[in-house]
Amino acid sequence: MTVAPFPADTTERCDADPDPLPLDDVRIQVDAELGRFLDAQAGSAPDNCLLPLIELIREFGSGGKRLRPLFCHCGWVAAGGERQAPELSRIGAALELFHSFALVHDDVMDSSETRRGSPTVHKLFEARYPDQQNRPAAERFGSSAAILVGDVCLVWSDELLQSSGMEQFRLRAAMPWISAMRTEVMAGQYLDVDEREDASDELGRAWRVIRHKTATYTVERPLQIGAALAGADEQVLHEFSEFGRPLGESFQLRDDLLGVFGDPTTTGKSALDDLREGKRTVLIALTRQLANARQRSTLDELHGDPRLDERGAEALREVIRATGAADEVERLVTERTGAALDVLDRMPIRESARHTLKDLTRAATRRHR
Amino acid sequence: MTVAPFPADTTERCDADPDPLPLDDVRIQVDAELGRFLDAQAGSAPDNCLLPLIELIREFGSGGKRLRPLFCHCGWVAAGGERQAPELSRIGAALELFHSFALVHDDVMDSSETRRGSPTVHKLFEARYPDQQNRPAAERFGSSAAILVGDVCLVWSDELLQSSGMEQFRLRAAMPWISAMRTEVMAGQYLDVDEREDASDELGRAWRVIRHKTATYTVERPLQIGAALAGADEQVLHEFSEFGRPLGESFQLRDDLLGVFGDPTTTGKSALDDLREGKRTVLIALTRQLANARQRSTLDELHGDPRLDERGAEALREVIRATGAADEVERLVTERTGAALDVLDRMPIRESARHTLKDLTRAATRRHR
Repeated sequence: MTVAPFPADTTERCDADPDPLPLDDVRIQVDAELGRFLDAQAGSAPDNCLLPLIELIREFGSGGKRLRPLFCHCGWVAAGGERQAPELSRIGAALELFHSFALVHDDVMDSSETRRGSPTVHKLFEARYPDQQNRPAAERFGSSAAILVGDVCLVWSDELLQSSGMEQFRLRAAMPWISAMRTEVMAGQYLDVDEREDASDELGRAWRVIRHKTATYTVERPLQIGAALAGADEQVLHEFSEFGRPLGESFQLRDDLLGVFGDPTTTGKSALDDLREGKRTVLIALTRQLANARQRSTLDELHGDPRLDERGAEALREVIRATGAADEVERLVTERTGAALDVLDRMPIRESARHTLKDLTRAATRRHR
Repeated sequence: MTVAPFPADTTERCDADPDPLPLDDVRIQVDAELGRFLDAQAGSAPDNCLLPLIELIREFGSGGKRLRPLFCHCGWVAAGGERQAPELSRIGAALELFHSFALVHDDVMDSSETRRGSPTVHKLFEARYPDQQNRPAAERFGSSAAILVGDVCLVWSDELLQSSGMEQFRLRAAMPWISAMRTEVMAGQYLDVDEREDASDELGRAWRVIRHKTATYTVERPLQIGAALAGADEQVLHEFSEFGRPLGESFQLRDDLLGVFGDPTTTGKSALDDLREGKRTVLIALTRQLANARQRSTLDELHGDPRLDERGAEALREVIRATGAADEVERLVTERTGAALDVLDRMPIRESARHTLKDLTRAATRRHR
C-alpha cells in the first residue's frame, strides 16, 4: 500500500497568530484524554483484578509537569499542525503513560521510597500486603505489582498511540522517533544501574546518563515526534535535535541543582533524597573532580548515606559550592540554553511555536534558590 | 485516510495443497528474522552499553518452542494468507520477543532460579556483579537488569511489529487482538502475584490464571492475530476463540502435569521446580479439594517447600495420584481437546491449516509419562 504523501504546504512558515501556545490548555486536554482512556480500559478490562492497578496509574499520573506532551505539541504546531487536534492530545497522553512506565520501573530499580512527594508505587502495594509481619513477602509483592503497573503503562501507551485516531501516514512518519526514544530510555537506565560502566570516568558516565535517560527523552524526541507527525522535513527534524539536546541537558542540570539546593516547598521534591540516594549527577562528578583531599573525604563519607540528616546535607552543599562545581553547572546551563536559543532563532518554524519554545527555554535557566 | 479493504477472495476455502504446513520451516524463518532484527539493533544501538543485553536476549530466545508464531502462522494460512510471507515471520518474531518479555519479568517476580534448564536472566546478571560478597547489591543489580531486559524485549517487540513490512490495513485489523493479548497477559500475571485474590476459591483462581496468563495468550490470540492479518471475517475470528480457548487450556493442563510427573530428560524442565515453587495450578487445587485430612496435611507441609527433595516430591505425587486429581486433569485435557477438534472440523478454513492445527491439538493430548 502506498501512503498518501504529506501535503506540500503543511509547514506554513508564518501563522496568523504569533502568540505563545496556551500550554495550560494542552495540559488539560492531555489529562482529559488520559482519563478517558483509563475509563475505557476499566470498562473493558478482561478481569476486574486490573481495577486497582488502573486507579493507581490514574493517581500516579496526576502529579507530572507534562513536559513531554508540551514539547510534542510545540513540535507539531511548529511544523504546521493544527492547534486544536484531539488526536495529538491522545499522542501526548501516550507519552505520559510511557513516562509513568519509566518512572515506576526506575523507582523499583532504585528502591526509592517517594516520588512527587508521595509513596512510590511499589511502596503503596507493599503496604497493601495482608501480612505486614512478613517483610520479605510484602516487599516482593510490592515490587512485583509495581513491575506490572509499569508493564501495563508501557503496553497501554502503545495502545493509545495506535488508537489515537492520528492518520496512519503521520504515525508512520513518527515511528522511527518513537522507537528511538523508547530504546534510548532503556540504554540510559541500564547505564544508570550498571555501576561497572565507566567506573573510572565518573563525569563522562554522568553525561552519558543525562543524554540517554533524560535529555533526548524529555525534549528532543517529543519535539521530533510532534514535528514528524505534522510532516516536518529533514532539516527541521535535524534542527530540533540541535535545539533539543542542549535544552534537555539544561533541564536535567537544573533539576540536579534543585535536587540539592532547591526549596522543597517550591520544587515539590525533598532536598535530601538525591544526596541520600547518592545520585551520580554531573554536579557531583564535577565536585569530586574539583575537590581537595579534605573535601573529597566529606563527599565519600556523606554522599549516598541513606541516613543523611540536614546537617550532613548542609556540609555536602558547602563542599559542592566551595569547589566551584555549583557555579560551573550554572555556567553549563547558561551556555547550553544560549546554544539552544541560537538554533531556535534561525529555525523555519511557526512563530507561535517559537515564542512558546523560547518561554520554555528561559524557564529552564531560571534560578530557584 | 480510507484504508484499502481486504480483497473479497482472501479467504479461499480449499487450497491446492492440503498437506500440513511445514512448521519446522516456520520456526527456522522466525528465528532468522529475530536474529536479523537483533543484529540491526546491535548495529544501531544508541550506546554500546546495550550490547550485553542484546546478547542475552538472543541466547534466552533460542530455547523456546515457538508455539505463538506457529499458531499465528496457522491462523494466517487458515484465512487465506500466503504460505511464504517474510513479513509474517517478522510478526512471529515479534510475538517471540513479547514472550521473552513476559518470561523474564515473570522470573523476576517469582525469583525463579532456572528457566529452560539454564539460569534465569536476573540470576545471570547477578553473577556478573563485581562484588559478589555484597549479596543485596548483587541481587538488586540482577533484578534491575532483568527488568530492563524485559522492557527492551517489550519495546522491540512492538518496533518489529510496526516495521515488519506487513501492509498497514492488515496491521490495523490485527491491532485489537494484539492489544487484547498484551492486556490479558498483564491481568493473568497480576492474579498470579496477588495472593489475596480469591484466596477462598483456589480452584476458581487457578482457572482464572490459566485463562488469562496462558490459554488465550498461547493459542487463541496468536491464531486470531494471524487470521485478522489475513483478513478473516468475524465468524472465523469468533470460531478461533471457540477452538483456541479449550486447546490453550489443554496445553496448560498438560504442562502442569508434566511439571509434576514429566521425565526431565524429555520435557527439559525439572520435575521438582513447580512443586518447590508451590505453583498454584488447577492440578494442585483439585488435589486439595479431593484430599482427605492426612493427604491435605502432606500437601500443606511439602507443596511450596523450597528445599523439597526427590523423596518429598514422590510423596506429593502419590497424593496427587491417590486423590484422583491427576486422572481428573487427564480427563479435562481429553474433554477440552475434543471440544477444540469439534470446532475445528466445522470451520470454513483452508485444509492445510486444519490438518496442521489437528496435529498440534493431538500433540497436546499426548501423555509423556
